[in-house]
Amino acid sequence: MKTEGIETELKPSASSKLFHQACRVLPGGISRNTIFRKPHPYYVEGASGCHMTDIDGVQRVDFANNMASLIHGHGHPAIVEAVTKQLQKGTAFTMATEVEIRFAELLCDRNPGFEKIRFVNSGTEAVMAMIKAARAFTGRPKIAKVEGAYHGSYDFAEVSQTAGPDNWGDLEHPNSVPVAVGTPQSVLDDVVIIPFNDPERASLILDQYADQIACVLIDPMPHRVGLIPATNEFINAIYQWTRKSGALLAFDEVITFRTQYSGAQAGYEVTPDLTALGKIIGGGFPSGAITGSNEVMKVLDPREEKVLLPHSGTFSANPITMTAGRIAMEMFDQQAVTRINQMATKARSQITEAIKLADIPACVTGGGSIFRLHLKPEPPQNYRQAWVNPETGQLIKTLLDHLYQEGFMMINTCSAALSTAITETEVEQLSEAMLSGFKKIKPALESIQ
Amino acid sequence: MKTEGIETELKPSASSKLFHQACRVLPGGISRNTIFRKPHPYYVEGASGCHMTDIDGVQRVDFANNMASLIHGHGHPAIVEAVTKQLQKGTAFTMATEVEIRFAELLCDRNPGFEKIRFVNSGTEAVMAMIKAARAFTGRPKIAKVEGAYHGSYDFAEVSQTAGPDNWGDLEHPNSVPVAVGTPQSVLDDVVIIPFNDPERASLILDQYADQIACVLIDPMPHRVGLIPATNEFINAIYQWTRKSGALLAFDEVITFRTQYSGAQAGYEVTPDLTALGKIIGGGFPSGAITGSNEVMKVLDPREEKVLLPHSGTFSANPITMTAGRIAMEMFDQQAVTRINQMATKARSQITEAIKLADIPACVTGGGSIFRLHLKPEPPQNYRQAWVNPETGQLIKTLLDHLYQEGFMMINTCSAALSTAITETEVEQLSEAMLSGFKKIKPALESIQ
Repeated sequence: MKTEGIETELKPSASSKLFHQACRVLPGGISRNTIFRKPHPYYVEGASGCHMTDIDGVQRVDFANNMASLIHGHGHPAIVEAVTKQLQKGTAFTMATEVEIRFAELLCDRNPGFEKIRFVNSGTEAVMAMIKAARAFTGRPKIAKVEGAYHGSYDFAEVSQTAGPDNWGDLEHPNSVPVAVGTPQSVLDDVVIIPFNDPERASLILDQYADQIACVLIDPMPHRVGLIPATNEFINAIYQWTRKSGALLAFDEVITFRTQYSGAQAGYEVTPDLTALGKIIGGGFPSGAITGSNEVMKVLDPREEKVLLPHSGTFSANPITMTAGRIAMEMFDQQAVTRINQMATKARSQITEAIKLADIPACVTGGGSIFRLHLKPEPPQNYRQAWVNPETGQLIKTLLDHLYQEGFMMINTCSAALSTAITETEVEQLSEAMLSGFKKIKPALESIQ
Repeated sequence: MKTEGIETELKPSASSKLFHQACRVLPGGISRNTIFRKPHPYYVEGASGCHMTDIDGVQRVDFANNMASLIHGHGHPAIVEAVTKQLQKGTAFTMATEVEIRFAELLCDRNPGFEKIRFVNSGTEAVMAMIKAARAFTGRPKIAKVEGAYHGSYDFAEVSQTAGPDNWGDLEHPNSVPVAVGTPQSVLDDVVIIPFNDPERASLILDQYADQIACVLIDPMPHRVGLIPATNEFINAIYQWTRKSGALLAFDEVITFRTQYSGAQAGYEVTPDLTALGKIIGGGFPSGAITGSNEVMKVLDPREEKVLLPHSGTFSANPITMTAGRIAMEMFDQQAVTRINQMATKARSQITEAIKLADIPACVTGGGSIFRLHLKPEPPQNYRQAWVNPETGQLIKTLLDHLYQEGFMMINTCSAALSTAITETEVEQLSEAMLSGFKKIKPALESIQ
């Protein structure tokens, strides 16, 4: 599965030509920083199942699945058929639709903690609505979140997502570090940063703002923090802290919902008050949702005399997303969850084997249908350990380029989110390509250790 | 076009039954407050062109067009065909697509001020990204906005959207009033509220925060402020103020872009630095965008050594929205803009005629393809004048119910946003239904004047 059509000085690729045109009208030539690659991103022609073909005719196996959002890969016939049918009836109305109810029922049936649900258009919107709901319910201004965790682009939610050694400060009280220049100081002041999987330090920090915190925002397996699951001890401690102090426990399961039938939260002893969903629940279309207890979700109820959180959205619960999402999640039943997780376990194990064979200081983290490669001998335990220095970052890029040339599309941290379309064949091919990649970067990796 | 299937005590409508089921899983039984109606919302079965049919078989003419987002009405064959084709190729990828470039070119070609564009998933996301871009460019924390103006649900953007006489404060310095309970005080402190179309008062207020304001956010014909166009004097004064103080002029044209080929901004002498788009540009699918000068949009460029505004989005620029939006906007050419605006002018004029015939104290405001009915003898000049007291609000509801029963779907302020599918026939029918509605509410309206 070697690639062709690679750009040379004599013959620029079709992707290179398109990028040149794109730079005229898009900042940096792209619409999403995640797809940016040097010297230019690649342009897709079409995709089917687990295969993507770019406009130069090169086919690759898709282990990225649009940043973990396509649980069945591309163009699943059942989704295409249902959406094609809905297209004929219309895509958006100033009225309700039956499918939003059926889809809400399906999601609420998966988890007893999902008593009510409100749909929005993206994970970013979901986390924003969840934080606003927590503030409305508690009347408090601050949130707490884990250092390094990604929760979309709402500025409160993105604080300290990209903190580094030069600005993250003392582990006993991590700094609130802005992602964007110009983030108001007041936003930083209203976000309390806690270290991951460190119940003692986290509780001590939280205690300092006990009566001001609306919610503690937790991704139970945060990708940027190292893609290691939150420990039971950590989740229990945070939960107990929220009970004691009158704050809410808010889970961001936009990515992790795929890891278990009822979401990653099923693996813990406690139930979050609110959960943000997104990614796979849209069946390939823009989607997001917040869900939680009747008591908390009531802040959104327009029948209340005083609506604590007035909230609308032009495309929220549009019938295309609802239709695609419903079909996708129906097919992602308990059996499908088990199967995809087994496939990812196999991948983690084969790549770990490749690491041993190549004899390099690397490891694989993850759970459910997701994994991440680290060029570190031991799995990182928090964001500071997971943080990638520039030299190692360069080797990750080299490895990603190698995998790309070998025909594999990964998430740009060298992570993967499987689809149900992936079979053992692709997993084995990926492991082989990883092995040859490991051998390629080994000398450089050893020199920087 | 009388309605059938209306709920009676003996036979609940299909919509009523669905709403009952919806209340089990959705807060208040709905996914968007805008579609909520008492005793229950109606559920759509399907729609075509300017006609919507609910699940009780009742057909209505759609003058709401999903809150002004469907410029060609429902199920336009060219959009359905193009999207159906793209569906086969996939809906979302961790790669770029050609159609995002072609659509960006098309939008940038419409307005010389649109030098670069970045796509997002909703108007809410667009305004949020625009504000963050303005902060990143200027390094300043505050924004200024017009009292009462709606700009989506980003908390900074929604301040004072629902202010009322009991909390809006002095017109010389309007209060920053939260929409949601629990909005951090710091958010309110970072939003400066100015009155609409009042250059003197606005400038005096802005001067007090001259070195802290990143941008002045302006909807050039804000719906909730009364749907009257911003005056040239107001826009010029705000523009001059931004030049003097180093702030940006940021237009929210999520709704108003439809009013002229290049957006409502074409009607003014100055060019905003940034513009937020949404609604119609998605061709019926979730969409949003920010656009503006090369200089400012550079904050998003991932090729810069220090990216001032790192920004991504799983579904941003997805090829379904790009495909539908491109076709929709191609068809919404200069001729189509002229035609739809003429149709709306006709509607405004016929409804004004009906007001005269009914001899009630009412008026119609608006421009381009949008209009709004006010139960006030003169067009309101700002949000405080446009504000609807509860008694008048009740009469608006009665009128909306009447129109609904007569077979017309309006936006819930008794506003309309036409689609190109609307013909003179529907406009005339609406005017007739308005006339009979006016007669119905006349006694009550006179009693509360």
